[in-house]
Amino acid sequence: MSLRLHAPVVLPCDASCTVLRDAVVDVVDGRITHVGAAAEAPAFDGEVRRLSGILLPGLVNTHAHSPMTVLRGLGSDLPLLRWLQEQMWPNEAKMTAADIGAGMLLSAVEMLRYGVTTSAEMYFHGRELVSSVLAAGSRVVFGGAILDVPGMDWKAMTEDISSWIDSDGLVSGPGGRVELAYGPHSAYTLAPAQLTEIAAEARSRGALFMVHVAESPFEDEAQRAEHGSVPALLKASDVLGGRVLSAHSVHLSDDDIALYAAAGVGVAHCPGSNMKLASGIARVPEMLAAGVAVGLGTDGPASNDDLDLFEEARLAGLLARVSTMDATVLTAAGVLLMATRGGARALGRTDIGALETGRWADVVHVSADDPSFATGLDAPDEQLLANLVWGSGSRAVMDVWVAGDHVVAGGESTRVDRAEAQAGVAEVARRLRSS
Amino acid sequence: MSLRLHAPVVLPCDASCTVLRDAVVDVVDGRITHVGAAAEAPAFDGEVRRLSGILLPGLVNTHAHSPMTVLRGLGSDLPLLRWLQEQMWPNEAKMTAADIGAGMLLSAVEMLRYGVTTSAEMYFHGRELVSSVLAAGSRVVFGGAILDVPGMDWKAMTEDISSWIDSDGLVSGPGGRVELAYGPHSAYTLAPAQLTEIAAEARSRGALFMVHVAESPFEDEAQRAEHGSVPALLKASDVLGGRVLSAHSVHLSDDDIALYAAAGVGVAHCPGSNMKLASGIARVPEMLAAGVAVGLGTDGPASNDDLDLFEEARLAGLLARVSTMDATVLTAAGVLLMATRGGARALGRTDIGALETGRWADVVHVSADDPSFATGLDAPDEQLLANLVWGSGSRAVMDVWVAGDHVVAGGESTRVDRAEAQAGVAEVARRLRSS
Repeated sequence: MSLRLHAPVVLPCDASCTVLRDAVVDVVDGRITHVGAAAEAPAFDGEVRRLSGILLPGLVNTHAHSPMTVLRGLGSDLPLLRWLQEQMWPNEAKMTAADIGAGMLLSAVEMLRYGVTTSAEMYFHGRELVSSVLAAGSRVVFGGAILDVPGMDWKAMTEDISSWIDSDGLVSGPGGRVELAYGPHSAYTLAPAQLTEIAAEARSRGALFMVHVAESPFEDEAQRAEHGSVPALLKASDVLGGRVLSAHSVHLSDDDIALYAAAGVGVAHCPGSNMKLASGIARVPEMLAAGVAVGLGTDGPASNDDLDLFEEARLAGLLARVSTMDATVLTAAGVLLMATRGGARALGRTDIGALETGRWADVVHVSADDPSFATGLDAPDEQLLANLVWGSGSRAVMDVWVAGDHVVAGGESTRVDRAEAQAGVAEVARRLRSS
Repeated sequence: MSLRLHAPVVLPCDASCTVLRDAVVDVVDGRITHVGAAAEAPAFDGEVRRLSGILLPGLVNTHAHSPMTVLRGLGSDLPLLRWLQEQMWPNEAKMTAADIGAGMLLSAVEMLRYGVTTSAEMYFHGRELVSSVLAAGSRVVFGGAILDVPGMDWKAMTEDISSWIDSDGLVSGPGGRVELAYGPHSAYTLAPAQLTEIAAEARSRGALFMVHVAESPFEDEAQRAEHGSVPALLKASDVLGGRVLSAHSVHLSDDDIALYAAAGVGVAHCPGSNMKLASGIARVPEMLAAGVAVGLGTDGPASNDDLDLFEEARLAGLLARVSTMDATVLTAAGVLLMATRGGARALGRTDIGALETGRWADVVHVSADDPSFATGLDAPDEQLLANLVWGSGSRAVMDVWVAGDHVVAGGESTRVDRAEAQAGVAEVARRLRSS
């Protein structure tokens, strides 16, 4: 399969956020083989598509619990603990594997419509979840949730992931769409020795260890009292060193940030969830300055309440600016890179998150037919990035390719009937309400 | 003209944010004549439209400079003062009346697509601006900008508004679409005696006095030093007492808030602009608790960078929650009311902002065909409001009526060719860039 995408603007999302004009992205067998100005492009033997808007890499959602779309909006005006105890946990306990598959199917379709081609999911019933991702044509890093709480067997949950990786491989599926990972929930639902054991399992397989850290001031108290901080507990438990993704990471000290930078820990910053649940303001400018790999996450759609990573990018910028009282602390380019290249880096991936030779051809086409771009695609680079990030966001996403497959056309999934996926979720939601 | 709108969910936006099920909104000659359950509705002689989603009042944007869409994205990573001095002011000085008309036309179309049926505009060249609003079929409170700065004649600007009101009336246009107002820019671009005189002109005509107050910590220094605060200056200058809209109002003391509540001053809260420009966090929960009428504003599209008031509603809620560390401080219902009824009240209007008998039939139909509503329109009230406010936002706006006229259908203007309006703005932007 050979495809050349040719557009007036291409944003490769390289480290300096270059804006290419009149450029091409060449794709062979799902991988990018060339990106550059059309005038200097090599001869190309394959289909050529002329597009009228902006090409950029698929966005990387570094932290989600997407099947929770079946609970979206439930108890959303409650304080965090009551919301969890009265609404989330009792309902999640009733969710079947099929319910999770139905939720993930709609969420994968929703994310693709917003230009999100990869999501890192911490959840249960991974086989059904992964099957829905593949049906939508999306890409996932599935971290099987692991907790030591009544009714759950942390050891069996860990062994399930290990044996799954051992039988199917760390990466599988068409276009390498499925990566398996470990999802130890947190340092307050697992003991340090358990975290150590899970981390050893992950490290021996080169797998990602994804964990909630310091999300709100009201959790982790015992752990913080004993170890000083959750990052210090993770270090003491020999968790750091392998691939580690620290979700939320709102309440970090300077020492925690330095530790993360030194150990190469990635952070999934979730500004929408942190604001809506009143968890706090993560120290993103300080983390970026220290060299920490920071990506963006939506968190679950019951906390957010959608899966729009463009919106998270905007929120990350707005929140950093107002909380530091410095309008220059995060630029449009800066937040766009967090949503793409930075997210891939936070997950420890170099094969997604940018339009570069050798990476998977996960590509988004944003239409210029939106009032946000009315000043023209020939506007200066900085203005064009502002129009995309602060203005249009996901509204103008028109086409999406994953590993070169055209999975969204005209703003709708080419693989899943969205109305049917919505009806599937409606059925689950009604059953949960009435049971 | 008689029209009955019949939908599974109607949100009248009354003071308690009631959710009506299977209900109708009756419209005769542009005004609402009845709202209530379909089963108990009176006989109706006229067209009946069955709709499948949610009806709510048109949103009220209480503070905008919409023609600045021709400058959208310019210098958006600069700090506030450099952004104003290097990008906004030099470009605005070059804008002609026709440029302003072209900008307003696209902005009115953009706002209507997002369900915003009224905007309060502080800007120049009002006749061209109003003409564009009428072409789009939208509604405006036009406050002619008044400044005492080099090159501008504050007295002539004031007299122009007064004579316009005296000749055309305070309210005019089909469906009462145009209200005229005074737009004295701020207490740092006008002397106290000038503010006094403008306020007297406004009060004698029952007109709104709209003014920027305490937007950023870096302005108003001299005024605050002399009077303690800008609200205190306004009181001392005999500005309060009539209809006053205080835009931004970020840096207010307890005394300022009490003064605003006592004097019935409305506030236009602009969270997106305040975050992006790092102006600060307005004390919205305190203002609401004190009984101040708080509406929402986008500010100009060069500061925001769009005109999506649903997004401002979400930002208002998110920002209030995280800044107070209390997830219950602003509910979905609370922010929805700020975007509608509260906005009307802030403008001193009782004829828009709610679906109530006697008000203008400014109505928005939000489609339920969006993943945000997948849990079903039969979800509990609180969940449904959450799905609308935190989830779908403007994405699912399908139809809009202003004074009973169907001005948006299928998500697009019925009156203006959006592509032509965008091309008009592109031409202005290119001329400004090259001149």
